[in-house]
Amino acid sequence: MNTENTPEIDIIKASQSKISQVDFDNLTFGNTFTDHMLVCDFKEGQWQKPVIKPYEPFLIDPSAKVFHYGQAIFEGMKAYRDANNQVWLFRPDQNMDRFNKSATRLAMPEVPKDIFIGGLKQLVALEEQWVKGGKGNSLYIRPFMIAVGSGVIAQPSTQYRFMIILSPAKSYYSGEVKVIIAEHYSRAANGGIGAAKAAGNYSAQFYPTKLANEQGFQQIIWTDDATHTKLEEAGTMNVFFRINDTLITAPTSERILDGVTRKSLLDIAQKEGIQVDVRSLTVDELVKAAQDGSLKEMFGAGTAAVVSPIKGFQYQEHYYELTPQDQPMALFLKEKLTNIQYKLEDDPFGWTVHV
Amino acid sequence: MNTENTPEIDIIKASQSKISQVDFDNLTFGNTFTDHMLVCDFKEGQWQKPVIKPYEPFLIDPSAKVFHYGQAIFEGMKAYRDANNQVWLFRPDQNMDRFNKSATRLAMPEVPKDIFIGGLKQLVALEEQWVKGGKGNSLYIRPFMIAVGSGVIAQPSTQYRFMIILSPAKSYYSGEVKVIIAEHYSRAANGGIGAAKAAGNYSAQFYPTKLANEQGFQQIIWTDDATHTKLEEAGTMNVFFRINDTLITAPTSERILDGVTRKSLLDIAQKEGIQVDVRSLTVDELVKAAQDGSLKEMFGAGTAAVVSPIKGFQYQEHYYELTPQDQPMALFLKEKLTNIQYKLEDDPFGWTVHV
Repeated sequence: MNTENTPEIDIIKASQSKISQVDFDNLTFGNTFTDHMLVCDFKEGQWQKPVIKPYEPFLIDPSAKVFHYGQAIFEGMKAYRDANNQVWLFRPDQNMDRFNKSATRLAMPEVPKDIFIGGLKQLVALEEQWVKGGKGNSLYIRPFMIAVGSGVIAQPSTQYRFMIILSPAKSYYSGEVKVIIAEHYSRAANGGIGAAKAAGNYSAQFYPTKLANEQGFQQIIWTDDATHTKLEEAGTMNVFFRINDTLITAPTSERILDGVTRKSLLDIAQKEGIQVDVRSLTVDELVKAAQDGSLKEMFGAGTAAVVSPIKGFQYQEHYYELTPQDQPMALFLKEKLTNIQYKLEDDPFGWTVHV
Repeated sequence: MNTENTPEIDIIKASQSKISQVDFDNLTFGNTFTDHMLVCDFKEGQWQKPVIKPYEPFLIDPSAKVFHYGQAIFEGMKAYRDANNQVWLFRPDQNMDRFNKSATRLAMPEVPKDIFIGGLKQLVALEEQWVKGGKGNSLYIRPFMIAVGSGVIAQPSTQYRFMIILSPAKSYYSGEVKVIIAEHYSRAANGGIGAAKAAGNYSAQFYPTKLANEQGFQQIIWTDDATHTKLEEAGTMNVFFRINDTLITAPTSERILDGVTRKSLLDIAQKEGIQVDVRSLTVDELVKAAQDGSLKEMFGAGTAAVVSPIKGFQYQEHYYELTPQDQPMALFLKEKLTNIQYKLEDDPFGWTVHV
């Protein structure tokens, strides 16, 4: 018996499904949830028995540490339905590993594989009718962990709750994205938690992003906080630059998230013979490349949008618009990646996992 | 009628008080809560009517943005009972101003004065028997705001909950604190949220603090993240250094919290004729001062402990122990400050506010 797939889980089924009320053609990202969720509590030093139960609000103490000291981490993943009606996950081990690295960095307990992957598979299998077929459709998976122990003293909690919730998603079109290079605000410190998928990192971005929106830019390209000279991330995504025919992205670090889409695109690019250069691109280099025409593309990469092409960027009061490419590398890589995810092409990397 | 003191608040009283079950001589900081709490929701662009109700867990959606994107801020304050049985707050306007600055930085709505101060006064007045007399006893006040709107998309919430909970506290003795100077980890980025009392800042400190604890140090002295050469905060407190007879503390910045205890101690020191120097002290200066004997004292300053003397510090594998002083400036300043808070001395600054 493969215990990874079959942890002992109590299942309490919803009395009726909400699925018939959902308009799958008009989904707003992250707003609709399936009938069930997975809940697993950590207390007295160990993980308790997981339960799959109806999706619903839960009771929590006003002094729960998540509200006061921000111990909260998450992952973003997707399940896909192929043409043969089979449901697949994409590199779930990578998300689990990153989740547990985030947990360690926030002094939270690691979630064992039989709960994270095993529980996830059972939950997705139960909700499989929510995974709609057709490229672009997916079931967005949100595992997260919060500190539920009570007490307003700044110390790690002794009680945690791990949950998985599921949200059906359409292909995510981010529109024509114009970005602004950060010259003052930043998302992560050296020696900080920028590499963790920690809730606190996101709230820090909202205000600077609001200011950018007011200036007509959809996202910020984050730079290193000390010098604002190195290009690091795009909004909540990793960022790629194509200069001539070389694809450049920053190396992962304490400040930069080890994105699953990022690393998958790098692997695909290398396999396809595209020149890849994993290094910090500087703002000066970017401006120079925009001026001399060697900057062909910029795009964000992440689970929700897969690839989000950037139309142009603003730096020091000057806007640089990119010339549209006939055969954008961004779309080629996106096509390759999603073809693997939807089983439309071979998966030479062994990334897809059957539910 | 002073509307600041009398917002329209619904009051739902607890059927019976828990106060007789509380052992006020053996309180663990932040673990015991009074009978009531204040709750005020923000939705459809405005603050709703506040309610004071029994302290109890509340229902929240699993996709609430506080769990995923960390929009959560708080304040720490205290109420004191004087020898004439009157109950006082200390500079509540300062906490409200900082709270609203934190709110802006995290793209959350500001809380109006009639709710923050007016609601706080009504709540403390209702719970006044929880404010025990005698120096050292206090009622710790925890106003906080969380994003309760649902949806797993990284955007600011449109719904928030402001709450105030109260916890009776004894004099907080931090013990003999040995600290370690941060050489790798850091608590805040330039252009980040270090100046906000944001939940996410605290979870980032837990893991490095755990490592320090394992090495025998109770706290970390945080340094700037870019160079680790400037001394910035001590654990979750502001930090002061006494070199010869000069009191030194870092200026507030985007990385350093504008502490109410910090600024109050500075005002008292200046009034008492103590030489004050608000500037960044470097690690090199600190080590040199420890070596030549001019470093007389180090202490943390914050609402919970008021002043927390530091016995010695570790830097680059070397431990520097401070020589105990006959008349420590830390204790002199603490005495002056707490005498004002407990109305044992005149309050020349007008800091105390009657409940």
